[in-house]
Amino acid sequence: MTVTISDILEAERRIRPYVRRTPVMAVDPADFGLSFGGRLSLKFECFQHTGSFKPRGAFNTLLSDPAGRPAVAVSGGNHGAAVAYAASKLGREATIFVPEFAPKRKVEKIRSYGLDLQITGMEIADTMAAYRAYLAETGALDIHPYDAPGTVAGQGTVGLEWREQVREQGGDMDAVLVAIGGGGLISGVGVAMQGGPAVIGVEPKGAACAHQARKAGEPVQATPTSYAKDSLGAPALGPLTFELIEAHVEDLLTVEDDAIRAAQAALWRVCGVAAEPGGATALAALLSGAVTPEPGAHIGVLVCGANFDPATLSG
Amino acid sequence: MTVTISDILEAERRIRPYVRRTPVMAVDPADFGLSFGGRLSLKFECFQHTGSFKPRGAFNTLLSDPAGRPAVAVSGGNHGAAVAYAASKLGREATIFVPEFAPKRKVEKIRSYGLDLQITGMEIADTMAAYRAYLAETGALDIHPYDAPGTVAGQGTVGLEWREQVREQGGDMDAVLVAIGGGGLISGVGVAMQGGPAVIGVEPKGAACAHQARKAGEPVQATPTSYAKDSLGAPALGPLTFELIEAHVEDLLTVEDDAIRAAQAALWRVCGVAAEPGGATALAALLSGAVTPEPGAHIGVLVCGANFDPATLSG
Repeated sequence: MTVTISDILEAERRIRPYVRRTPVMAVDPADFGLSFGGRLSLKFECFQHTGSFKPRGAFNTLLSDPAGRPAVAVSGGNHGAAVAYAASKLGREATIFVPEFAPKRKVEKIRSYGLDLQITGMEIADTMAAYRAYLAETGALDIHPYDAPGTVAGQGTVGLEWREQVREQGGDMDAVLVAIGGGGLISGVGVAMQGGPAVIGVEPKGAACAHQARKAGEPVQATPTSYAKDSLGAPALGPLTFELIEAHVEDLLTVEDDAIRAAQAALWRVCGVAAEPGGATALAALLSGAVTPEPGAHIGVLVCGANFDPATLSG
Repeated sequence: MTVTISDILEAERRIRPYVRRTPVMAVDPADFGLSFGGRLSLKFECFQHTGSFKPRGAFNTLLSDPAGRPAVAVSGGNHGAAVAYAASKLGREATIFVPEFAPKRKVEKIRSYGLDLQITGMEIADTMAAYRAYLAETGALDIHPYDAPGTVAGQGTVGLEWREQVREQGGDMDAVLVAIGGGGLISGVGVAMQGGPAVIGVEPKGAACAHQARKAGEPVQATPTSYAKDSLGAPALGPLTFELIEAHVEDLLTVEDDAIRAAQAALWRVCGVAAEPGGATALAALLSGAVTPEPGAHIGVLVCGANFDPATLSG
């Protein structure tokens, strides 16, 4: 079980009618006070349907199931909204299991797509138990938030699209910075960028399961504590994302929560773009100096989500 | 005194190193509940430096002055920030006159660029008197917010850039919707779009100086009352923008303040884009039904500003 560039090309053909080609904007690094004297391209995947990259994997998984089974997912956040959105667009059935502690605003977003919503479990273990029982009973199509080939191949279309756009603007990137939750996005981007830009992963210090897995040589369980945990707080990499990250991600960086807050504020002040904590985490690595590009380098940064209360940018 | 396509091409060459090529994103009209079954391209000029299109005109005017004189402008809003930003980038001197009632947040933005800030006048007439006295005394380079060829030609580069981008994405637009304050932006876009898409202007009902001027056959003075008046509240068109709007703008539409609020909310919900009231006014015409495109039409909408408190999108 792995994911290859062919899987991503197939995913691209499958999902293209349903997803937005989100924009890439070239900005002067000096606008952010960066002095490496190179180029900076921001890809705004935060403008994708439902406010994150997650519909790419959800559409790909739904469209890959020849039987058209009802789908099931567990998520009180971006993945839940994406599965609900994709199922509603395709006229498919889906059940979304949401823990009782999920933020009301995100739950209402999931509810707005009109699919079956099961709010259950005071702890995530209870939510998972309910979901597993449902899955065993129904044989529904399981849409994993990150550790499944269909999910990874779908998210990988971000990488294909990005390289194509930067080439159209007359260049190629030397490295791309991508945030990591459970690793589905960066695994797909890593496969898509093979032979091209170096792929660098960024995690909050308080939700660093890829960093910990690389150190341990295998996925390890941890309890996310970061300010960005609502979107990046996976408890562990899966076997698939661990394998792909080890194969395709050159470096793994961690950033403090304050650096993430500062990157959100900078994106708003410098570019007028409102990104959620997880959406600004990749940029935080650059602004905090966790990575210093070579002089003249062309760096890409993925801004991957906008599901948050923009009032947090006020002031 | 007029503005031609040559002036805009010259402005483009002059300002290109200093302004961002802001992104265009194709979205399905159905995402906004629109049923005309055509295409919709949003240009996000709200991601320009300082959060609006205004630096284009400011850079063009500054770079057109061979003597490199100190500049002067009157504005407590987007124009003031743009002139201050452009002057600071070019190492030029500038004085910005700001009325005492200007919003503190906008004044602080202007101040942040480190130019000479003159906060004076409890009423705008007093601010204007101070500015005129300064201008007469110093012979400074006057940068008008809309009614000057250098300003209009600079703002017109938005139109050139937009058509080029839509062509690169394999199409052309049938019509573009652009908000009107004093008319500098739409005048330039109108000249740039000649022989191409129809240009349609949109104003808030409570700040409709172009609509009133077209009816009267000449610019008329009015007191703006709209929710969007901080960016679109010019007291009247000038002779130049009146002439250019009459020559190049096919239709003038007006929208209620509630439609503007709804368009801001829709841009945030559907696209994750946070636009100020004036920035969402062009889209409001489409969403409120003030204009109904032909079946199959390709409509462009300019989202032109993001200088506001994003907390107003909460909830």
